[in-house]
Amino acid sequence: MAVGLSGKINPVPVAGVRLGCAPLGVRSDPRDDLTVIELVAGSRTAAVFTRNAFCAAPVTVAVEHLGRQAPRYLLINAGNANAGTGSQGLADARGCCQAVAARTGCAAEQVLPFSTGVVGEDLPVARFPEAIDNALARLDGNGWAVAARAIMTTDTVPKSISRQFDVEGHTLTVTGMVKGAGMIRPDMATMLAFVATDAAVAQELLDDCLVRATQQSFNRITVDGDTSTNDACVLMATGAAPSIYDPSSDGAHALHRAVSEVCTWLAQAIVRDAEGASKFITIAVRDGRDEQECLQLAYAIAHSPLVMTAMYASDANWGRILAVVGRAGLEDLDIATVRIDLGDVCIVADGERAADYTEERGQSVMSADEISITVGLGRGGARATVWTSDLSHEYVTINAEYRT
Amino acid sequence: MAVGLSGKINPVPVAGVRLGCAPLGVRSDPRDDLTVIELVAGSRTAAVFTRNAFCAAPVTVAVEHLGRQAPRYLLINAGNANAGTGSQGLADARGCCQAVAARTGCAAEQVLPFSTGVVGEDLPVARFPEAIDNALARLDGNGWAVAARAIMTTDTVPKSISRQFDVEGHTLTVTGMVKGAGMIRPDMATMLAFVATDAAVAQELLDDCLVRATQQSFNRITVDGDTSTNDACVLMATGAAPSIYDPSSDGAHALHRAVSEVCTWLAQAIVRDAEGASKFITIAVRDGRDEQECLQLAYAIAHSPLVMTAMYASDANWGRILAVVGRAGLEDLDIATVRIDLGDVCIVADGERAADYTEERGQSVMSADEISITVGLGRGGARATVWTSDLSHEYVTINAEYRT
Repeated sequence: MAVGLSGKINPVPVAGVRLGCAPLGVRSDPRDDLTVIELVAGSRTAAVFTRNAFCAAPVTVAVEHLGRQAPRYLLINAGNANAGTGSQGLADARGCCQAVAARTGCAAEQVLPFSTGVVGEDLPVARFPEAIDNALARLDGNGWAVAARAIMTTDTVPKSISRQFDVEGHTLTVTGMVKGAGMIRPDMATMLAFVATDAAVAQELLDDCLVRATQQSFNRITVDGDTSTNDACVLMATGAAPSIYDPSSDGAHALHRAVSEVCTWLAQAIVRDAEGASKFITIAVRDGRDEQECLQLAYAIAHSPLVMTAMYASDANWGRILAVVGRAGLEDLDIATVRIDLGDVCIVADGERAADYTEERGQSVMSADEISITVGLGRGGARATVWTSDLSHEYVTINAEYRT
Repeated sequence: MAVGLSGKINPVPVAGVRLGCAPLGVRSDPRDDLTVIELVAGSRTAAVFTRNAFCAAPVTVAVEHLGRQAPRYLLINAGNANAGTGSQGLADARGCCQAVAARTGCAAEQVLPFSTGVVGEDLPVARFPEAIDNALARLDGNGWAVAARAIMTTDTVPKSISRQFDVEGHTLTVTGMVKGAGMIRPDMATMLAFVATDAAVAQELLDDCLVRATQQSFNRITVDGDTSTNDACVLMATGAAPSIYDPSSDGAHALHRAVSEVCTWLAQAIVRDAEGASKFITIAVRDGRDEQECLQLAYAIAHSPLVMTAMYASDANWGRILAVVGRAGLEDLDIATVRIDLGDVCIVADGERAADYTEERGQSVMSADEISITVGLGRGGARATVWTSDLSHEYVTINAEYRT
């Protein structure tokens, strides 16, 4: 179902990063669902996590560990979110970190745990030791493609991408992978995303890179408006390649751009592979008073079941878009300055149906797999863009049957 | 599909009100879709309308007319909303009022127009004169049941109810009807609702009755979060029965109660007959700091596609409810005081899965057609309740195929 994603990925290895996977047996099918990422000593790590008040146990533990020591291992399981599991969940997450530490000689605090899957079920901790052994035995710098598949839950295709850039004659790499298809409306982070570079960078620059990139990528997508309990995005810098310490240097700019491009590609890939997605929809609001009102309207359109079922049906039912613009709560909205475009077809101008709009012209846009909706508010210079998917029968089927 | 509604209605006539219907031919099937309601001279009318900034032409005209003269006629068409139609739409709505005025001898400003249906298409004004003639010829005090059917669009059953009460030895009646099944999240009003009483009441008391009743009924339901462009709720008092002028009298209290009961029944009937509904869901949030945060959380749960597909599947996937509580944006939420009940089964206590919760107990609640979700915030005395329906395949089908 993934819109515009072939499923073929070709991630470039990042010096200093090795990945290994193994079956944990949380899922009914016997595929790999446990992943270990190993970082070379001296690596730096930045991370952002969900703002859901009911954040999962592994999120709590990862935040705790990050504040104490530089991570050497990331441990990721798919199929069970270890969320809503209270004190038992915290003990389980810590126990899994200890299992990695015991086998690798690092401290438990140098292990970051990540879980994704069903909320509210206990982690099957007894199965972790053997699976961790197997994953460690398979650690490999070329392990990105296997790992991108092992972290999937309802995803239909693995999602990974690389960007390379030159700094002082050296080629540096940024490679990322992501999982996520439902319970997607990231807030300062997204479902699990792991991005690594071989650049050597100061912690401050790394943090800044991550925050700026996520703000315009993972924080601009939605599938169903439901912010997960387990969202996390991690940016790792191994320092195996030349150093980039000056935040205003050309190298820092190139790193910013590469990290942003990787994050944007990964964020859009989540939407393209969203549960039941048959369309990839770009919603842009422009000429607003401030970015906040542009985002408010863009998300209101993205979360409208009526608009999103019309998208699914390829039906140019633009009255539904207009109805959302009117009820989105924009202060003092003067409809006389509102303009709405579907692709390159103007449907509403000056608050009324455009004189030259015809059903045929609207239909020609709607028939495509990728559709853009642009709303002009005509009252300022701010703008914002979000990406989302349509609401299909397949979405209902996937989410009605998820636990059965 | 309607949950707990048989479709059998038995509205009690209201002295001073007559209703007549006729086919207008907007719909492909030849059923009645034009309704005229006649009010006896001396009647008083209160009304609330959508707050959607893109309100429909008939809403603009009805508000204008209400401010000038006491209405004698209401003209309602189903199938075409006359919304997003600009200046042509306003001219069309005024023209329809004039057509009623010309045939009845009243002023055009004594006619209130109402439209419901597809947004963005011009009203077929040429067909109105003949249909108005036919509807006027059929005016009948017993016309409520026929009218309740003629105002339907995607509704599957007619929705009408009556309450009677005694004032000083006289029996007074409140009868109402409503249409609406999709694009339902009323804001100060709902899809078309018409309620009448034979009581004689002052305008101020009538307005107060309507505002108080809608606040706790139509403004507490949602199907898809989309506030319509055409919402309207009208309360008519013909004065054919004894007068109720003292707002603190027993009669006024009885009228308040009867109007509230009628509005609550009608509001819940919309949800029971919501597009694709297979469940009727009551979401109560209690022990909050104020009503606003209770409503915010209740609507966040009601609008979560993940929770509502789980409801559809009768799946006690309570982790999804917990995830919404955590991301609903409640200030300084301490999850340690949160309690969640599904029906009479406690699933989360003190922020963790309840010790005695079992999947079987959760499942026993979920299998019913009517499900209640209660969230206790443990930090105040405020509460709020909203009603909603599940997200089903049928919902997607109806909204993907609505215009085809």
